Amino acid sequence: MTWKILDCTIRDGGYYTDWDFDQKLVKKYFNEIETLPVNIIEVGYRSHVKDKYFGEYYYLPTSTINKLHEWGNGKISLALMLNAKEFCVDDVVSILDGCQGIIELIRFAIAPDNISSGINLAGEVKRAGFNVTLNIMYLHEIIKDTSLFESICGELESAADKIDYVYFVDSYGSCMPEEIHKFFLLSRQRISQKIGFHGHDNIGLAFANTLSAINAGVDIVDSTILGMGRGAGNARTELLAAYFAKQQGSAIDLSAISELVEEFILLQKKYEWGSSIPYIVSGFEQLPQKEVMELTSKRRYSTGSIVKMLQGNLSNGDTVPHYPNLNDSKLKKQEDHIKTAIIIGGGGTAIRHNEAVIEYSTRGNTLIIHSSLKNVESYKDYDGLQVACLVGEEANKMSNVGKEIDKIHTFIVSSSPRIEQQLPESWNDRTFTVNPLWTDSNKKGNTNESPLNLSLSIAREMKVDKVLLVGFDGYPAGKVETKVLAEEVQQTIDQFLNDYPEITLHSITPTLYKVPQSSVYACLSDNN
Amino acid sequence: MTWKILDCTIRDGGYYTDWDFDQKLVKKYFNEIETLPVNIIEVGYRSHVKDKYFGEYYYLPTSTINKLHEWGNGKISLALMLNAKEFCVDDVVSILDGCQGIIELIRFAIAPDNISSGINLAGEVKRAGFNVTLNIMYLHEIIKDTSLFESICGELESAADKIDYVYFVDSYGSCMPEEIHKFFLLSRQRISQKIGFHGHDNIGLAFANTLSAINAGVDIVDSTILGMGRGAGNARTELLAAYFAKQQGSAIDLSAISELVEEFILLQKKYEWGSSIPYIVSGFEQLPQKEVMELTSKRRYSTGSIVKMLQGNLSNGDTVPHYPNLNDSKLKKQEDHIKTAIIIGGGGTAIRHNEAVIEYSTRGNTLIIHSSLKNVESYKDYDGLQVACLVGEEANKMSNVGKEIDKIHTFIVSSSPRIEQQLPESWNDRTFTVNPLWTDSNKKGNTNESPLNLSLSIAREMKVDKVLLVGFDGYPAGKVETKVLAEEVQQTIDQFLNDYPEITLHSITPTLYKVPQSSVYACLSDNN
Repeated sequence: MTWKILDCTIRDGGYYTDWDFDQKLVKKYFNEIETLPVNIIEVGYRSHVKDKYFGEYYYLPTSTINKLHEWGNGKISLALMLNAKEFCVDDVVSILDGCQGIIELIRFAIAPDNISSGINLAGEVKRAGFNVTLNIMYLHEIIKDTSLFESICGELESAADKIDYVYFVDSYGSCMPEEIHKFFLLSRQRISQKIGFHGHDNIGLAFANTLSAINAGVDIVDSTILGMGRGAGNARTELLAAYFAKQQGSAIDLSAISELVEEFILLQKKYEWGSSIPYIVSGFEQLPQKEVMELTSKRRYSTGSIVKMLQGNLSNGDTVPHYPNLNDSKLKKQEDHIKTAIIIGGGGTAIRHNEAVIEYSTRGNTLIIHSSLKNVESYKDYDGLQVACLVGEEANKMSNVGKEIDKIHTFIVSSSPRIEQQLPESWNDRTFTVNPLWTDSNKKGNTNESPLNLSLSIAREMKVDKVLLVGFDGYPAGKVETKVLAEEVQQTIDQFLNDYPEITLHSITPTLYKVPQSSVYACLSDNN
Repeated sequence: MTWKILDCTIRDGGYYTDWDFDQKLVKKYFNEIETLPVNIIEVGYRSHVKDKYFGEYYYLPTSTINKLHEWGNGKISLALMLNAKEFCVDDVVSILDGCQGIIELIRFAIAPDNISSGINLAGEVKRAGFNVTLNIMYLHEIIKDTSLFESICGELESAADKIDYVYFVDSYGSCMPEEIHKFFLLSRQRISQKIGFHGHDNIGLAFANTLSAINAGVDIVDSTILGMGRGAGNARTELLAAYFAKQQGSAIDLSAISELVEEFILLQKKYEWGSSIPYIVSGFEQLPQKEVMELTSKRRYSTGSIVKMLQGNLSNGDTVPHYPNLNDSKLKKQEDHIKTAIIIGGGGTAIRHNEAVIEYSTRGNTLIIHSSLKNVESYKDYDGLQVACLVGEEANKMSNVGKEIDKIHTFIVSSSPRIEQQLPESWNDRTFTVNPLWTDSNKKGNTNESPLNLSLSIAREMKVDKVLLVGFDGYPAGKVETKVLAEEVQQTIDQFLNDYPEITLHSITPTLYKVPQSSVYACLSDNN
């Protein structure tokens, strides 16, 4: 009974790095992976052009393919993945131009209800001379649903010559070793193609499940260095390699890859994949790990709150205190005097240019809206109207805030489902709710509050003509850690420009966002 | 089929903290663990007095027991562990004074070849009114050795009334889930006591093995928060609790313990338990994780080297270059001129007092021995004889060292098994070996070189009358990270004082070590 290891570190780990990897690291990976019993490495995706930035290993241009071919030195087979949803039979072969003779295996990620289109794509690619896998997602659903499994078996039976490997993917890392064992014993009987397993580590069982699949006789299993991969990550190549060697009775010198693993430990410290509490919830409750990744990278919620959101325990009226709507506030009564809202973001330019912003605001008819408490201190000398949004667990960060908070006329919390915050009692009679301008009703029990969303909603409620952004500096391009936040702000800006063309919106401090730009100093000189 | 969870975070995690835990953390742990389906918590050891420092939860004085009783509030059972080796039937009950009515369960850690004495101890403790477990170590040996298993079963059969639970411990985390399942199915038939399992995570299977044991019908399993425990650690309580809840069809609110887990994440960043490459080797090769912990905390070797040492791949003559012995060196020929050796350690006082040390050395008959390259720079103005030890991978740190290295007359490496270092070619004709003064022949393929051991050996070879230590500052008491290093130095000093009374040894800069103390400034004023 032999089985193969496919290492997909670059393809699956790319979810954390936007598919950019340091060239030296990839070269080291190619050199050291050769010392392990790894048969195939998957080096990324080929993909149609997207309107977001993705790196080298997402598009795998031919120059990269050639470079990898050289590094691989013919000693190891190369694979790449296609997302079946993106392709049709007419374009699937042409996307592989330049791969012939270098990439041996093309893998298709596909949902279980879409097997037939996957088979058609695979057939085209197989005819073009590649080996092909179907990577069927959501194994936990297939295990629960016998008729789904039967229909998959039927489809595969009629495609015996089109597909080399059929993988099953434990998408939410929620399957148990004994389920996996039973499932693959059955699959072994019912499926004529070679069979593979790709596990996820949400509840720490990726390696154990992979061993179960191997014991049930699968032909190939996926793994990554230090388990690096989407969400909680994967089975670890170094463990599987050691297990393989042990099974064969041969020795493996793990010291040869320990330097490589050390480099991935640094990546793990940065990106923090692994089985944390939110992923454990995602595993046991079978919720998508994509949502966990997103909520975590917004850095607005504690782990406990993320778990509550994932478990759908966010609801209003039950646990969070009730506050009246902004319409019933003293602030709202002043709307006739307010023509301009200045929204203060968390960026450094809100501090650097605070005096100019205060001078401009002092000329009258201006409401300062703090999207968070972060820069409130820099506006303590402003005696006009100031409100502050309390998004996520903002009020729980109060230890950073001193007496300057007395200048805040009104606090705003979201009326959508939100996390409970500890507001000082003295704030009670000056705290009000507004509805976010946009909510995402798709997300179960989730909140769609964001600092800019809520701030713009206040501006609209106050019927201003003009919204000026201050301190929305943006984040350096290519910084993966801040990508989700940057995207959230840009999307909110785009949506506002589109939905409320009657309200002027521009940034009066330097910004990396795509938004009409002017200058706070021009405002001052224009007596604008 | 029900099973219980025993959380032993404090007892097993104590291996990393010397059994000291912040009081606030323990209180939080008591509060939050109540929200989980955990039945018993093990709070530490009772132990005879040792000549090393161990903290509150190693000795569990009665005041601590009472405090924990109060915190537990009667909602959770308490256990503690005794190391069977330490006790006899005459003293085992008295060590538990003050525990009656508070601690319900006493656990005995015991080797499989010593069951009968464990049973005798357990019988005494049982008679004194406690419930009792035997925690039998080295499960991997019992699984391999049927006659050992049979003899254990026989012993247990005759002790039906003396023991409540029999645990089996996968000491090196090397068992596979299917082995575990088979073993506990068999044990279930052969052992009348309740059965427990304690897993280790060397190869990432602690949780999976624990599930296997549960599926085979064990009554109780151990786990710790975030898996904190000796070596690679344990099965994670948060995973087991979630699994338990799922099995019962009940919901579990993991947000309640997420703050606690976050605090343990900080501890993990500090102590780094978990399945790293050295522990993987320990698991697959069935080597004690204690050795891995020690080698790692010496901070002298790369992961790759530790793995080599663990795999017994350290041997001389094969891979490391050959250098002549110190006896064949030019340095040795100068022994008649040398009366005093000054050994420079890595501490800051070697820099602070360098001018005085240089002045004293310049008066003649002195050899400066750098125990490492760390403080060589501060002695670049000394024109007398200087040698430097290259212990571990010292020479690979060369990037820190500049031209001052030219002042080093001779480099010394250990003649015992050692790690290969990259020495610059120009050093070749001035590098020699010495035997460490003491070697530990117990350790398979291991090296016993240490900077002070090697330095003292040079001093002895050079037949000096006096050895003066400079820059052996020691480490703050209670710092767990530097404990192994501090112990190594103290032991070396003690052994030297004992074995070579004819050679004077004292420290002439401030030190925390127990060693005769004088002052470099006294040496100067005495014209000593």
